[in-house]
Amino acid sequence: MMTKVIGMNEILEKALLYDFYGELLTDHQKYVYEQFLLEDLSLSEIAQNVGISRQGVHDLVKRCGHILESYEEKLHLVKRFISIKNKLRVMEQMLDNYNAKDEKVILEDIRRISQEIIEAL
Amino acid sequence: MMTKVIGMNEILEKALLYDFYGELLTDHQKYVYEQFLLEDLSLSEIAQNVGISRQGVHDLVKRCGHILESYEEKLHLVKRFISIKNKLRVMEQMLDNYNAKDEKVILEDIRRISQEIIEAL
Repeated sequence: MMTKVIGMNEILEKALLYDFYGELLTDHQKYVYEQFLLEDLSLSEIAQNVGISRQGVHDLVKRCGHILESYEEKLHLVKRFISIKNKLRVMEQMLDNYNAKDEKVILEDIRRISQEIIEAL
Repeated sequence: MMTKVIGMNEILEKALLYDFYGELLTDHQKYVYEQFLLEDLSLSEIAQNVGISRQGVHDLVKRCGHILESYEEKLHLVKRFISIKNKLRVMEQMLDNYNAKDEKVILEDIRRISQEIIEAL
């Protein structure tokens, strides 16, 4: 299998974009793009599976990436969800580090974060 | 102004759909649809403003509604956000009703809700 020159963060970002907007692709685009993104097959392997040229797979994968990115540029939903998830993680950590001595403080912090999340929705 | 035969829940639902997916409409569609949805003008008033027929406005508004609904049918993002918002409201209420006697219970409940929200993201 060909090694891809693609960093982990980039893969995660593409996966999030696909998770949010993938249903807006056609069935054919999803079929090909999933092999690239989720099954991690090389372009040549996908080309064989789908019965189109390697260049055809390359173009389709690139186009799908652009389509998903253009939805994010307009709707910013991935960005919004990451922000909410981070706030919730902070809340979880506070609960993990909970100490009975400062329950007042922690409850106030949780309330503040909860309000921030509601405002971010 | 013409009274619209449209319930409050329906308006709220349309407003949420527009809030989430409105940026996927064209500028012209947004211009007309906002007058209908946000400024609450009648079809005749919008027709005068925009310089198209009342029937043209009617068709455009209907078409915009369908476009926004079709995005929701595919992505379910409004449904997901409503679910998260409801969970956060429960959390807020728990904090409002906080009583020092049962801080252990409330913190466990908050942790459970927080995990539910993360899973729903």
